[in-house]
Amino acid sequence: MIVVLKPEISKKDEQAVLKEIKKLGYKPHVMRGVERTVIGCIGDERTHQTLEVLGSWSQVEKVMPIQKRFKLVSREAHKGNSTINVNGTVIGGKKIQIMAGPCSVEDEMQLMTTAHAVKKAGATILRGGAFKPRTSPYEFQGLGLKGLKLLAKARKETGLGVITELLSEQHAELVAEYSDILQIGARNAQNFQLLIAAAKTGKPVLLKRGLSMKIEEWLLAGEYVLSNNNPNLMFCERGIRTFETYTRNTLDLSTVPIIKKESHCPIVIDPSQGAGRSDLVTAMCKGAVAMGADALLIEVHPNPAEAWSDGAQQVTLEGFANLMEELKPFIAAAGRE
Amino acid sequence: MIVVLKPEISKKDEQAVLKEIKKLGYKPHVMRGVERTVIGCIGDERTHQTLEVLGSWSQVEKVMPIQKRFKLVSREAHKGNSTINVNGTVIGGKKIQIMAGPCSVEDEMQLMTTAHAVKKAGATILRGGAFKPRTSPYEFQGLGLKGLKLLAKARKETGLGVITELLSEQHAELVAEYSDILQIGARNAQNFQLLIAAAKTGKPVLLKRGLSMKIEEWLLAGEYVLSNNNPNLMFCERGIRTFETYTRNTLDLSTVPIIKKESHCPIVIDPSQGAGRSDLVTAMCKGAVAMGADALLIEVHPNPAEAWSDGAQQVTLEGFANLMEELKPFIAAAGRE
Amino acid sequence: MIVVLKPEISKKDEQAVLKEIKKLGYKPHVMRGVERTVIGCIGDERTHQTLEVLGSWSQVEKVMPIQKRFKLVSREAHKGNSTINVNGTVIGGKKIQIMAGPCSVEDEMQLMTTAHAVKKAGATILRGGAFKPRTSPYEFQGLGLKGLKLLAKARKETGLGVITELLSEQHAELVAEYSDILQIGARNAQNFQLLIAAAKTGKPVLLKRGLSMKIEEWLLAGEYVLSNNNPNLMFCERGIRTFETYTRNTLDLSTVPIIKKESHCPIVIDPSQGAGRSDLVTAMCKGAVAMGADALLIEVHPNPAEAWSDGAQQVTLEGFANLMEELKPFIAAAGRE
Amino acid sequence: MIVVLKPEISKKDEQAVLKEIKKLGYKPHVMRGVERTVIGCIGDERTHQTLEVLGSWSQVEKVMPIQKRFKLVSREAHKGNSTINVNGTVIGGKKIQIMAGPCSVEDEMQLMTTAHAVKKAGATILRGGAFKPRTSPYEFQGLGLKGLKLLAKARKETGLGVITELLSEQHAELVAEYSDILQIGARNAQNFQLLIAAAKTGKPVLLKRGLSMKIEEWLLAGEYVLSNNNPNLMFCERGIRTFETYTRNTLDLSTVPIIKKESHCPIVIDPSQGAGRSDLVTAMCKGAVAMGADALLIEVHPNPAEAWSDGAQQVTLEGFANLMEELKPFIAAAGRE
Repeated sequence: MIVVLKPEISKKDEQAVLKEIKKLGYKPHVMRGVERTVIGCIGDERTHQTLEVLGSWSQVEKVMPIQKRFKLVSREAHKGNSTINVNGTVIGGKKIQIMAGPCSVEDEMQLMTTAHAVKKAGATILRGGAFKPRTSPYEFQGLGLKGLKLLAKARKETGLGVITELLSEQHAELVAEYSDILQIGARNAQNFQLLIAAAKTGKPVLLKRGLSMKIEEWLLAGEYVLSNNNPNLMFCERGIRTFETYTRNTLDLSTVPIIKKESHCPIVIDPSQGAGRSDLVTAMCKGAVAMGADALLIEVHPNPAEAWSDGAQQVTLEGFANLMEELKPFIAAAGRE
Repeated sequence: MIVVLKPEISKKDEQAVLKEIKKLGYKPHVMRGVERTVIGCIGDERTHQTLEVLGSWSQVEKVMPIQKRFKLVSREAHKGNSTINVNGTVIGGKKIQIMAGPCSVEDEMQLMTTAHAVKKAGATILRGGAFKPRTSPYEFQGLGLKGLKLLAKARKETGLGVITELLSEQHAELVAEYSDILQIGARNAQNFQLLIAAAKTGKPVLLKRGLSMKIEEWLLAGEYVLSNNNPNLMFCERGIRTFETYTRNTLDLSTVPIIKKESHCPIVIDPSQGAGRSDLVTAMCKGAVAMGADALLIEVHPNPAEAWSDGAQQVTLEGFANLMEELKPFIAAAGRE
Repeated sequence: MIVVLKPEISKKDEQAVLKEIKKLGYKPHVMRGVERTVIGCIGDERTHQTLEVLGSWSQVEKVMPIQKRFKLVSREAHKGNSTINVNGTVIGGKKIQIMAGPCSVEDEMQLMTTAHAVKKAGATILRGGAFKPRTSPYEFQGLGLKGLKLLAKARKETGLGVITELLSEQHAELVAEYSDILQIGARNAQNFQLLIAAAKTGKPVLLKRGLSMKIEEWLLAGEYVLSNNNPNLMFCERGIRTFETYTRNTLDLSTVPIIKKESHCPIVIDPSQGAGRSDLVTAMCKGAVAMGADALLIEVHPNPAEAWSDGAQQVTLEGFANLMEELKPFIAAAGRE
Repeated sequence: MIVVLKPEISKKDEQAVLKEIKKLGYKPHVMRGVERTVIGCIGDERTHQTLEVLGSWSQVEKVMPIQKRFKLVSREAHKGNSTINVNGTVIGGKKIQIMAGPCSVEDEMQLMTTAHAVKKAGATILRGGAFKPRTSPYEFQGLGLKGLKLLAKARKETGLGVITELLSEQHAELVAEYSDILQIGARNAQNFQLLIAAAKTGKPVLLKRGLSMKIEEWLLAGEYVLSNNNPNLMFCERGIRTFETYTRNTLDLSTVPIIKKESHCPIVIDPSQGAGRSDLVTAMCKGAVAMGADALLIEVHPNPAEAWSDGAQQVTLEGFANLMEELKPFIAAAGRE
């Protein structure tokens, strides 16, 4: 921690700060600069109480942390890339994995048609929402258990792994029973109780970035999963909220090299939520692959115009097959499979 | 709903749109403009499926909703101002209520000292966190049940009502047992399962605005409380996330007249979270009162520098007493008590 | 400057950093912490080259500045409050000054009617745009010189001071000739050539905050005025751009206590641009006054529905008179006149 | 334009709205919906006064524009892709053009070394700032005319085209004399007088996106160039301002497909400003190329640590040569040269 004192404070005021720093367990190291005095505080910021509280003292100008706050998810904790094995499908390895399927599971016909089509086009994991977080209580909230059972059936028929969203701590065991990866949505990205419940099921967890989550906060949310003894975490960028209204969110593709730099966990890109409009999905997938993403999460629907949720951002079965074709040269250029 | 067609589309493409509009239950009304054709779609947007999915059709330029999506929280549903009675303390009436207390409950001494001091200075409700949502799993997570018991003890000793945060669906009954108002924090503002669980306890609910929540989304989150048969909802603005880093968040005081205009529910301002620094709290309280806020939620601590959480934004007991004095002329100017 | 080294770097890499720090004119001061080594670099950050460039070195984790970058506008440079005297109207003193008038000057009738009405209601400065910055080249761009002459005529008739926007370096002398205060708009807040040209006219300058300008950047833009020998600078908050779409901008009223804390220059609030809708203007004015603003800048039009620009945010003459009445108790509560 | 009336307004109030709509030159078309009455207003929104002013009327709920506001830059105005020929270097054609060079021109040695190196690695245009917009007046403001002359000399020696920033209307002719492309920076993106001055020189204009500029505003700013008889406009995304602080800005790569969809003008990506840190530049270039960018604008410096401005985001000569190598497979995958 670095504590910067205000210019022209008295010796007594400086002493009071030094005393408090020591009381909180740090060893102060005073540097007298041209205008201000700066105190380096030596001690582990992750085990001691933060000194940021000193920022409220009248003689202190600012307090700056030095250390990174995340540990287990950090690249320093694990030099190599972590991989996650979902029934033989490896996420984070040489092969770029494609997770595809409808926004919501609506009925057997819709799900099976989609599952077979995305598998044929090259997807290895089936996505589909059974419990849906909806902005309004009057919107379709998902089929619930019935949806989970359909997903399990599609898995059995096609051999695809299944990813679905977990919305409630009380459903953790249930959702884990029917799926292979638990998705934590953007609106729950700092619902720490849900993260702990997901981690404890032992299933791999895909953690979406919150709508206005800083990278450090996202990594710290991931820390809740790893520190609850579940090493199978992947991060998923799905767009952040900005002033721009042309797209539903602003997809921050710089997260791909950043997560690779800061963490050993795989990074997944969700261009469907990122754009909120299907006509931009293909271009975003190309960018994500070129920048080094480990997997893509794409919404696909047999008839987007009649989808029960988020129709505007889902691509058709034919559109998805074309997208997969168009991606091939970029996957090769990235040295991936 | 208004559907705007692209210029120069064929009759056949237009017919397809009209057919789908009818299929989804709306009555289309075609207007031919100078450059574009616009279709007014008559039907209740809250009971029919949204037409926004048509936005993904190649012949459609955009789709615009007409109706407001919130009902029960709206000013149209209830012309007067709703009031919430917490053991005789009325929120939303003529008297501006002050909710004050520490960020976290730390121990009996800290809580009782604070409770007596804030009561003496004029507060009517005691705040204090027993379950704390923390960005990092390595930070203090709150005293839990022990904290709830201390809050209940302080209530008994002082007669103050108690507000505390609910973090987990699984604690809803427990927290409701020990407190008078359930607080839903910014990070859980769209954790709809938690909102439903809170609503079902029957206790008044204070719903903080999420870090990047649009006003309409906030009102719709409130709709989850009212539509679960709990009329005792109040909204609490605590700052939104913007590019500015001088303050921890950007307190959006325009929410005071906006919530008053759009909703009948009381509006509370939390300047402590809004500023993230205690030196701005008094000015923000004055602004909030002048603009018509029904209550203030202020963090107060006997020794902020040694607080276990968010020390920089908590005011001292003496600072709080001064603040209450300074507010008096503004409360009078606002025609409140 | 503080330079934080990465953990586990070699002695040689550390030496290279120390050598560069010395080369750039700072005296390094090494502190060995628990995990990382931190180098305090002693030297004046405002006269030396920045060390931030070291952030691109592979052995450096981050570089943090210590000093504030603004000087002349800072509270440290001038302990008291600066005041600006505009023909006897003092901005920054005990009296809260009201600047009011139409968004654009449209014709003599519109301007004179408004000028007399706002004067009668208590305004002391007349605002009105002669050169208008418009998002689209197809929108009304202002009356130009003809507008300036009308403003001068209104000044002569009413005795009100005049504020109008300066859009082009090439108009600086011309606009200064016809007006008393030069307004620099949000879109030009970092058009430094324009700021310099405005400063050199010697007229007082009102500097609006840019749409996404951090407080420090705003203060530094103000530094361009003071460092060009013009001490008569006032800052004007007019809302920042955020994700919220209910209001046109998000008025950041916390700038009032912040500018008062960091700078000696007066702070003005523009609720019309801040809200973008006239129904919120009165509440925002109350908040601004309560929080300590020195002046308000309010758009007033005899018939907002037929205004040639920004009709939605202009209040009527009658609305303005009511607003002035409603403000009185808050001005008194703030101890102002 | 669509005007939505409030529910339950009187016939008389409705008539007043209809009368005003006709007065402003539109033909109203009334649709009675379930809850609200909606008025379609037929007329060209770009030649008539906007109806948005009606939004301030008490009987009106909202006013929604239908038409796009930009014309000449739009894809509808010109179906093919526009190309810009800079002394034989074609921007917007099959070949992806690389513009590279230092942030600021510092001296002859620095510029010539860089120019030869970037040419050898495959760049076709040399960038370099002679007039620099700096947040603080105490920072290096560029070499001015001396810098322009060095750029011209480098052009002569290497045959590279030259792009440099235009900061002041008063320098338009001067900068045009020494360079091939005029760059309008992010802070001046809505400095319309500067845009007009740049357009009038007849030189190609590269328009950077403002820090918080919506896509529509950016296109409209471009409209200022085309409507001043200069067809040689290219758009350049350089990152927008968001809450994230890990990167200096958030590079919005979705602008590539969006500009391609909405406009016929070329789109350029500036990853150096976008990231603010050189270690992310290569990944961002790959993404930009994969998504369809026409050109890249990259900051390159022989010794970034000693650069006079923005050292942290400039890549070394060697780093640039490697970057160009790494891009090759992605350029091929995109079907470009």
